Amino acid sequence: MTTLKCRHCGNNAVINMRHSKLALCESHYIEWFHRQTEKVIKKYNMISHSDRILLAVSGGKDSLSLWYILTELGYKVDGLYINLGITEDDYSLKSQSCIEEFVNKWELNLIVYNIQNEIGYSLIDISQSTKRGAGRPCSVCGLIKRHEKNQISDEQNFNVLATGHNLDDEVATLFSNTLTWSIPMISNQSPVLEATDGFVRKVKPLFRFYERETTAYAIIQNIQYIYEECPFSKGSKSIQYKHIMNDLESKQPGTKINYFTSFQNAQKKGVFQNNDQISDRYKNKCKSCGQPTTAPDLCAYCRMIESLK
Amino acid sequence: MTTLKCRHCGNNAVINMRHSKLALCESHYIEWFHRQTEKVIKKYNMISHSDRILLAVSGGKDSLSLWYILTELGYKVDGLYINLGITEDDYSLKSQSCIEEFVNKWELNLIVYNIQNEIGYSLIDISQSTKRGAGRPCSVCGLIKRHEKNQISDEQNFNVLATGHNLDDEVATLFSNTLTWSIPMISNQSPVLEATDGFVRKVKPLFRFYERETTAYAIIQNIQYIYEECPFSKGSKSIQYKHIMNDLESKQPGTKINYFTSFQNAQKKGVFQNNDQISDRYKNKCKSCGQPTTAPDLCAYCRMIESLK
Repeated sequence: MTTLKCRHCGNNAVINMRHSKLALCESHYIEWFHRQTEKVIKKYNMISHSDRILLAVSGGKDSLSLWYILTELGYKVDGLYINLGITEDDYSLKSQSCIEEFVNKWELNLIVYNIQNEIGYSLIDISQSTKRGAGRPCSVCGLIKRHEKNQISDEQNFNVLATGHNLDDEVATLFSNTLTWSIPMISNQSPVLEATDGFVRKVKPLFRFYERETTAYAIIQNIQYIYEECPFSKGSKSIQYKHIMNDLESKQPGTKINYFTSFQNAQKKGVFQNNDQISDRYKNKCKSCGQPTTAPDLCAYCRMIESLK
Repeated sequence: MTTLKCRHCGNNAVINMRHSKLALCESHYIEWFHRQTEKVIKKYNMISHSDRILLAVSGGKDSLSLWYILTELGYKVDGLYINLGITEDDYSLKSQSCIEEFVNKWELNLIVYNIQNEIGYSLIDISQSTKRGAGRPCSVCGLIKRHEKNQISDEQNFNVLATGHNLDDEVATLFSNTLTWSIPMISNQSPVLEATDGFVRKVKPLFRFYERETTAYAIIQNIQYIYEECPFSKGSKSIQYKHIMNDLESKQPGTKINYFTSFQNAQKKGVFQNNDQISDRYKNKCKSCGQPTTAPDLCAYCRMIESLK
């Protein structure tokens, strides 16, 4: 077996990106990763240096890597960690401590929203005692996170919400939406969602990186992140879809990036005739929290909280 | 383990269709299968009793089952077998002999088009000695079959071409086209393709049946078909995609039918804005065979044959 060499300097490569036939050494990989991130930010006009950016951090490799890069690139980024009180495998505790270590090391601002303190219940409490949550903690988790990210952005005057979604995440979402041909979901999937009345602008600067690329980045940069997946995600559909796409990728390198790029090209050509803009559906304001909702009085989040009382 | 009972008569069931929670005994299964086929034919206005139908038969369970049913339902159907001279595993020989046994038993008309006799070369000859075919017999096979089915329908005044594609075939094709977001291919995929200038009308009456359902039908009806897949299809992408969909189906019964039905619903709503009708591309007539083509002089098939000389 011959050792792969870095395309730029000829030193031993630490990563080989088969889909783009690019092998790089540590330092050229970091350089490449930063340049690609900057390119994507510019191309999609994602953020500017005057933006107040809130980054949703989970303690995983993607969100911490993104925080690291954006800071390096000179953006003003505060982090938001939503602690859901997941005691299984000490998951929330471990996640938060990874983030706090990172924050202390780099002197960054972190907002922690602990649902046990704020609402008085953990994810599992809510999941077990509401109709919405019945046996589906992931659905409750998604609802809480969406609500809090939007609420905190609004209250604390952040004008952009960034998330660490990588290509594998985007591809799994797209695949999932094609299985049911949810056209509003498909046609609205984008690395940038513009702000609409009551919804903060959302950006995903890492959306073109394969998961193994963000992992490599975090490892090389010596970022201590939580390796474990959320204990509730075991056997989840999105993980199942990622396995499928990984399998196709291993047989045909480039499958994932081609899938997403050809999708974006189709989107750009306007091939999806979607008369159902998701943002148009949220025409009402929740009478409790004030966030946009499709419902006439309380939003889904507030209805869920209400049903706990 | 309790034996499943037929929903209609309480006898032991021979098949359980988990996706529709329907278990049936032999005779009620056959009754159900025929009724479903008739329903689909009517719903899509596929064929009438005055049509001269040409059925593309491969010797497999789907095409022979379809021939059996259509004949039972009183349609006038001749078969077309294209013998590609595949000597691996005696594949073409075995396929043809299954078909001939079927034809003799039921006194049906079969047209055999043997490419060795007609063109003077086998599939592998062509695949090995043309640029188009280089190492890709499946691409050559598709091209020959499309060409001959259309040519023979036209010459012998058939006004409908039927094929035995089942749900698994359709789902694999759809999935394949989403991987590259080929919108013209996606938006034109249909169980009925109307005739256009130079192209015969095409129908797929079995498109809503799972592969295991057409297999069960063939077995119960004691149809002797070729069990083996084509030796060149081993490891092919379409088989790979079928495995993926089978895997999803086993975890969530109904995945395949829901995938295809929700796709058809989206199509019906006109969500695919496709300015590129495939039939519009075929504006020229081939100067050799007269079939529609995108090329200025010879069609892809005639170019390939020309390059053999």
